[in-house]
Amino acid sequence: MSLLLGDIVAALGGSLEGNPQVPIERLAPLEVAGPQELSFLSNPRYRQQLAASQAACVIVAPALRELALQRGACIVADDPYVYFARVTQLWKQRYGTPVPVGIHPSAVVDAAAVVHPTASIGPLCVVERGAVIGAGTVLKSRVTVSEGCHIGARCILHPGVVIGADGFGFAPQGGQWLKIEQLGAVRIGDDVEIGANTCIDRGALQDTVIEDGVKLDNQVQIGHNVRVGRHTAMAGCAGVAGSTHIGAHCTIGGAAMVLGHLTLADGVNVSTATVVSHSINRAGHYTGFFPMDDNAHWEKNAATLKQLHRLRERIKALERGLDAA
Amino acid sequence: MSLLLGDIVAALGGSLEGNPQVPIERLAPLEVAGPQELSFLSNPRYRQQLAASQAACVIVAPALRELALQRGACIVADDPYVYFARVTQLWKQRYGTPVPVGIHPSAVVDAAAVVHPTASIGPLCVVERGAVIGAGTVLKSRVTVSEGCHIGARCILHPGVVIGADGFGFAPQGGQWLKIEQLGAVRIGDDVEIGANTCIDRGALQDTVIEDGVKLDNQVQIGHNVRVGRHTAMAGCAGVAGSTHIGAHCTIGGAAMVLGHLTLADGVNVSTATVVSHSINRAGHYTGFFPMDDNAHWEKNAATLKQLHRLRERIKALERGLDAA
Amino acid sequence: MSLLLGDIVAALGGSLEGNPQVPIERLAPLEVAGPQELSFLSNPRYRQQLAASQAACVIVAPALRELALQRGACIVADDPYVYFARVTQLWKQRYGTPVPVGIHPSAVVDAAAVVHPTASIGPLCVVERGAVIGAGTVLKSRVTVSEGCHIGARCILHPGVVIGADGFGFAPQGGQWLKIEQLGAVRIGDDVEIGANTCIDRGALQDTVIEDGVKLDNQVQIGHNVRVGRHTAMAGCAGVAGSTHIGAHCTIGGAAMVLGHLTLADGVNVSTATVVSHSINRAGHYTGFFPMDDNAHWEKNAATLKQLHRLRERIKALERGLDAA
Repeated sequence: MSLLLGDIVAALGGSLEGNPQVPIERLAPLEVAGPQELSFLSNPRYRQQLAASQAACVIVAPALRELALQRGACIVADDPYVYFARVTQLWKQRYGTPVPVGIHPSAVVDAAAVVHPTASIGPLCVVERGAVIGAGTVLKSRVTVSEGCHIGARCILHPGVVIGADGFGFAPQGGQWLKIEQLGAVRIGDDVEIGANTCIDRGALQDTVIEDGVKLDNQVQIGHNVRVGRHTAMAGCAGVAGSTHIGAHCTIGGAAMVLGHLTLADGVNVSTATVVSHSINRAGHYTGFFPMDDNAHWEKNAATLKQLHRLRERIKALERGLDAA
Repeated sequence: MSLLLGDIVAALGGSLEGNPQVPIERLAPLEVAGPQELSFLSNPRYRQQLAASQAACVIVAPALRELALQRGACIVADDPYVYFARVTQLWKQRYGTPVPVGIHPSAVVDAAAVVHPTASIGPLCVVERGAVIGAGTVLKSRVTVSEGCHIGARCILHPGVVIGADGFGFAPQGGQWLKIEQLGAVRIGDDVEIGANTCIDRGALQDTVIEDGVKLDNQVQIGHNVRVGRHTAMAGCAGVAGSTHIGAHCTIGGAAMVLGHLTLADGVNVSTATVVSHSINRAGHYTGFFPMDDNAHWEKNAATLKQLHRLRERIKALERGLDAA
Repeated sequence: MSLLLGDIVAALGGSLEGNPQVPIERLAPLEVAGPQELSFLSNPRYRQQLAASQAACVIVAPALRELALQRGACIVADDPYVYFARVTQLWKQRYGTPVPVGIHPSAVVDAAAVVHPTASIGPLCVVERGAVIGAGTVLKSRVTVSEGCHIGARCILHPGVVIGADGFGFAPQGGQWLKIEQLGAVRIGDDVEIGANTCIDRGALQDTVIEDGVKLDNQVQIGHNVRVGRHTAMAGCAGVAGSTHIGAHCTIGGAAMVLGHLTLADGVNVSTATVVSHSINRAGHYTGFFPMDDNAHWEKNAATLKQLHRLRERIKALERGLDAA
């Protein structure tokens, strides 16, 4: 498995400074790449690593062309990270296992489901009646798409994904829980990727909606009637409770939890493990997790934290006392 | 798909103020319901939305009857939310896909498992030897019920559920972990609903127990030897570590984590993302998560938090100093 | 199902003080064990429970031999907890269902996968091309091992595990996300146990690595290019973001989240629900979660927390004021 440097620039553009006949056998990070490997430098902070790299060739931005040439071959591209992503795609296209089009014989697809002929339904998937799977969409293996749920074109659903299980809806009645049947479904746009074991619940009355270009990592939980705006990305173990609307172009960090019935504006970035307990009306970066410490310090600070409000009262009293003194 | 208003009250009771011949084509939230749709008002806070609603009919409590009549048709019911839940059930019963009774041919059910003839074992489920599945219980698809685990009557297990995997038990020995075989099983009562990809581990020596009427959302994790009391509900991504006993009629918020070997009284409500690190002896509402802030403020406050205990000492010193002054 | 006390010591060693002909019908915790049951006392703190126990026999450390003999039969072993673990293994070996060697007919195993003849591939598993499954390894049911991933010897993968789904890698481009194909795989050592619905992503360029003897609980999420050192254990719902290296002999508590591109030294213990936001260079015990309180107190303290940095400034001002006074 190899690609010539010349083949890469022929396919993807960019300007090669070096011998187009040099074969590339792998892609590798800058610090470990060897003389048969192609690497990239996207963050100028790591320019120190550039000089020391053994890579056959490094993808760099125009501003780093001179520095890169002092070391050896380079491909100059406007956005080295995007260029690198395209090289991974080229590699996969040349040497990856082609995705088999059609329905694997072990999958259980209802006669009343609509699967586009160019879609790929992997082993041991379940597609229930009324479900629709768009063109070029791939269900890897062991994916469930429940009744009436729609998946757009060019989506990737990783193993264990569950689309359209019942939302968590119950009415309290005399100390017990009465089930609210979940009559909506899930609608997923185009170019959505959904990580392993992620769940998206069907809506109670209306549909849960995932817009175009959304990327969800593994083990994400999306409650009923949620809407996730286009090109928003959510990292592993994040969760969104029912009826919350998340804007477009947001990023939600790993294990962050967004409470229910909230609205997040476009362009909101939520840090890892942050609990979003109220709506956010402005784009920005929001955080809320307890800073880690060694356990002994944490114990002292956590104990004091339980008296924080009273400490504030004591500070007020001191201020009054000092004024009086 | 439609129901006449008269059919609804004939089936479910309540008092209709309006034309029983009006057809209802959908259920919808108050703010979006149109003239073919039935809605409900359960929270008096939203009474403002009532006047503006375009719904064909609104389910209201007796106290809001007069207000509702100014707008148009209504069904008066003692508990509008419960009534609404029953309408969803009526709708599902009339127009939903009937649950197929019996074992789907793609499911793998051991010859030594006992599946009630009225149970429904969906596609690609696994039911191991000695497992017992009660009357009317539904395993949706891709559910595993491991050896010797008992599921009661009228339960619903959503796709990807794993009942009875080994609890996480190891004895440390010379820097390695020696497996403690998990010799117990899982016993689940009647009317339990378990969300997609939720896991309930088998006990080490005795059984893990989920009592009647418990509702678990998606991606919940229940450790070995846990007991969850009847009619307790746990939201998505919550977790309970081994040997903890949770009382009856509790609610555990999303992503809350309950540590091991604890006891929670009946009627405890734990907020989202709260870590329950000690037993709770009294019913009540308990919370513990870091409040979200914009990232710059959070960074300052989080840094200061690491000195909180010392700040308290400084306040003490000030108090002494002021007394002396 | 029973074992004689004499059989147990014959198989596992230790010194029996009591009648070797006594039959043991179950293992049970000290406080509930009855006269047909064997128990153990590993933590001297619970020695109070020893005198009151009804157990047929109790496994104790040499230091507790005298105390135990006052009550009845005992087995004296250097490490009672390890001895107890071995008894569970003996029990399982005698009375547990033997693990069927070979590939269950419902599993989907690619012709170009390599499954050791002594491995056990359970019902409805998927093993893709180029995957390698080592000697004695057990895939319980509904496990996916993706293309090119290697699993060592004597591993146990519980139901719903996903090995080798794509890592979460995208390059931002004009407000959209461009997929970075994940060209690495997953390499798992020997004697690794992986809990139900846990996911381990394949590497972007190089492999994600789980070393020998690692134990992962349920619903753990391991991002791409992570390395987990040998004999490290991670409890349920923990997560590790991409490219982080965790040392050997660490313990990571339930729902703890380790951010990406970090390094944790050997012997690091992270508490439940702690966010590890920077590298840890020294063995030790690290914690960071908000202490739970009743909701009303929490609300006051959380509100004050948002002003913590300003409170510190006010304390400084007071200190200056008092100095001047």
